[in-house]
Amino acid sequence: MNREYDVIILGGGVAGLYTAKALSKGGKSVALIERDSLGGTALRWGALPVKRALDYFKEKRGEVERLLHRWEDDLDELNGRLERSISDLDVDIYYGEGEFIDSHTIKVGEKILMGEYIIIATGSDPTGIDGISIDGKMIITHKEAISLKDIPKKIIILGGNVEGIEFASLYAELGVKVVIVEKEDKLLLGYDEDLVEPVEKRLVEKGVEIIKGKAAKRAYIDEGKVRVLVEDGAIIEGDKTLVTLLRKPNFPKGIDRLNIDLDKDRILVDKNLRTKEENIFAIGDINGIMALGNVAINQGLQLAEYILNKRNIDMNYACLPRAVFTLPEIAGIGKQEEDLKGIKYRVGYCDFKESWRGWARGIEEGFIKVIVDENKNILGLWMVGNLVSEYIGLLSPLFNWGLTVDNIKSNLIIHPTLTEGIMEAVLNIR
Amino acid sequence: MNREYDVIILGGGVAGLYTAKALSKGGKSVALIERDSLGGTALRWGALPVKRALDYFKEKRGEVERLLHRWEDDLDELNGRLERSISDLDVDIYYGEGEFIDSHTIKVGEKILMGEYIIIATGSDPTGIDGISIDGKMIITHKEAISLKDIPKKIIILGGNVEGIEFASLYAELGVKVVIVEKEDKLLLGYDEDLVEPVEKRLVEKGVEIIKGKAAKRAYIDEGKVRVLVEDGAIIEGDKTLVTLLRKPNFPKGIDRLNIDLDKDRILVDKNLRTKEENIFAIGDINGIMALGNVAINQGLQLAEYILNKRNIDMNYACLPRAVFTLPEIAGIGKQEEDLKGIKYRVGYCDFKESWRGWARGIEEGFIKVIVDENKNILGLWMVGNLVSEYIGLLSPLFNWGLTVDNIKSNLIIHPTLTEGIMEAVLNIR
Repeated sequence: MNREYDVIILGGGVAGLYTAKALSKGGKSVALIERDSLGGTALRWGALPVKRALDYFKEKRGEVERLLHRWEDDLDELNGRLERSISDLDVDIYYGEGEFIDSHTIKVGEKILMGEYIIIATGSDPTGIDGISIDGKMIITHKEAISLKDIPKKIIILGGNVEGIEFASLYAELGVKVVIVEKEDKLLLGYDEDLVEPVEKRLVEKGVEIIKGKAAKRAYIDEGKVRVLVEDGAIIEGDKTLVTLLRKPNFPKGIDRLNIDLDKDRILVDKNLRTKEENIFAIGDINGIMALGNVAINQGLQLAEYILNKRNIDMNYACLPRAVFTLPEIAGIGKQEEDLKGIKYRVGYCDFKESWRGWARGIEEGFIKVIVDENKNILGLWMVGNLVSEYIGLLSPLFNWGLTVDNIKSNLIIHPTLTEGIMEAVLNIR
Repeated sequence: MNREYDVIILGGGVAGLYTAKALSKGGKSVALIERDSLGGTALRWGALPVKRALDYFKEKRGEVERLLHRWEDDLDELNGRLERSISDLDVDIYYGEGEFIDSHTIKVGEKILMGEYIIIATGSDPTGIDGISIDGKMIITHKEAISLKDIPKKIIILGGNVEGIEFASLYAELGVKVVIVEKEDKLLLGYDEDLVEPVEKRLVEKGVEIIKGKAAKRAYIDEGKVRVLVEDGAIIEGDKTLVTLLRKPNFPKGIDRLNIDLDKDRILVDKNLRTKEENIFAIGDINGIMALGNVAINQGLQLAEYILNKRNIDMNYACLPRAVFTLPEIAGIGKQEEDLKGIKYRVGYCDFKESWRGWARGIEEGFIKVIVDENKNILGLWMVGNLVSEYIGLLSPLFNWGLTVDNIKSNLIIHPTLTEGIMEAVLNIR
């Protein structure tokens, strides 16, 4: 059976889904090929499920184990939601592994699909490193970690990065004994000490053991336990090890038949996310620009605009809002002090408990931090606290356009809110 | 005793306090005169305490009566916080009623203060109307309503405006039988029906009786009850009546000795908030521009900049973010459909439960609404839901600069958050 489409999309993660919807709404016929289930890493194993469990913790304490057990059922519900969300659009979903036959032809199962455009949105998967092989049972990735039927007594998390710390936060709240092994001298590299400190403090309070400045060299199973050999020779024993060290791109089958530049980590694309084949694009993790769910969504939406209306893609990755979904959360946009070595800057803080709404709500924890340069330009705006990821909102266009201290002083924030603390932080700049 | 200051401020509400702090930080000596206690309407009887009680309700259900009883103690704590917040600055606080002797001289008690500049920030107070006189016991204002020692069984709220509805929401949650009398055909005039509907629905579910399209003509005490005569002749009986119909400006004593233009509602000022006396300014409710706490704060901060650095005041009141602090909250910025009669526009919605984070958090209620014109300019962005006032943040400068559909599509919002719904709403525009 042969079918022709305007666009074929390989991969039904957030990148592929948002692109499929936007192109279909724009009048294109779309084939979406997914080898597993819709949703991809962001919705199934990464950002969303961890937040879901932690949100549950914050809002309805005590039933988190049940929530974790339920997660696989929830994944079916997710699939249904995603299918419904595109059911009234002109998108055909094909389950199976797509393979390039040529630059306009994809084989999926017995079917041959022809596309004017083809979009590669196949994402990436976690992987082991030398000496540390994933077995999916005791040496696991986020896929297993989020849907554990039997909660381990003790888990060793390899990597004090965002993913590792989010899982550490989740497991610590569950009462699991957690050990984090991080080869750098600090957790959450790329985040300032003052932002990391409240998260680290809570982890320590929850009994998490944090080993810094030492790489994990080996992980192996012995006597029904997993053992991790750290570079100083120490051996840590646990029931499971979660590996968050490395991800590998999911290159589509048959890509070697095409004139597309690859390296081991990604498919190379130009500013409009186009490969060397002029009708083939790559979006999301697979192009190696930035492995974040919102980047993938945005690339998908912008690519749809490019295909539909020839609007060039314009994305300032320097003004990317980011969050760490721990308890408390870290969220913000722009530079941190770490990024400003050699540059003169000033900093202002407002503790939420000093804001009127914070006082009204009895909030003890969290703060807003603003970083400005000598000319009163806002370089960075960062927050720590419960649900602060919600308070960043549309700061991205503001940072793109250039926000100053005077802009904040001459505009209004709703009173009384915690976000008034942004103005207080600006008034408190030393 | 005579003292000389760079600036004398009449009134220690938010307008006066923020101005005093900013001027003192800028090197000015400041006298702050307050006839009652620091904090004014916004912090003592208006915005903050009602939100405080409702926040308490949302987060720690069940102890609200205790909270209300405690409020007067909390007011003392508030006073201490405010005094401490300016204690290390060069601000002298005088308690007493300030009286103008001439354009540079204020008498407070036995003291005579001389100021290069004088700032009037005396605010406004609720007042009765013909036929409805406040007695402070049974026919009351927000001052009594927020610190009721004995919660009434039944309260009649005159006015379905923001203040009336916020108190209705609070009392309804407390289990008090509430009747609202509103002379217009709808509650919350100036807010679109779809935004008001969830608030009204919850009020009705809580047993609130809503009388629309009929004005209250008289309120009187009879047999230990308060009776309200409505214009159709009906009489409603309750234990208390909260009157939210009208506010009167607190003109300072001796103002008639000066060359300042007044009308019955306000002191007239120019764009830099200056009266006809060139060294005298008026900020906050008293200038009648807009009776909102954040407007008062902002006018104070901008006036301080004007006095310190001669920076002209620049305020676009059309881009004012606003909120109604009910359960659920309404918050937003820009135009509503009501404001757009005769103008072509389109609307997009995203229900929070359809957003990924909303699903993760199990949120059932609330939505985001975006209104755009034919050229894809964003005219309005409104939300209904729990704590949505926090999600508006710094939208004010964005609206000032002109936000478009394409700006939102080409920028990033953190994933997964409820505020991603802004982008979804834009994608859903019909």
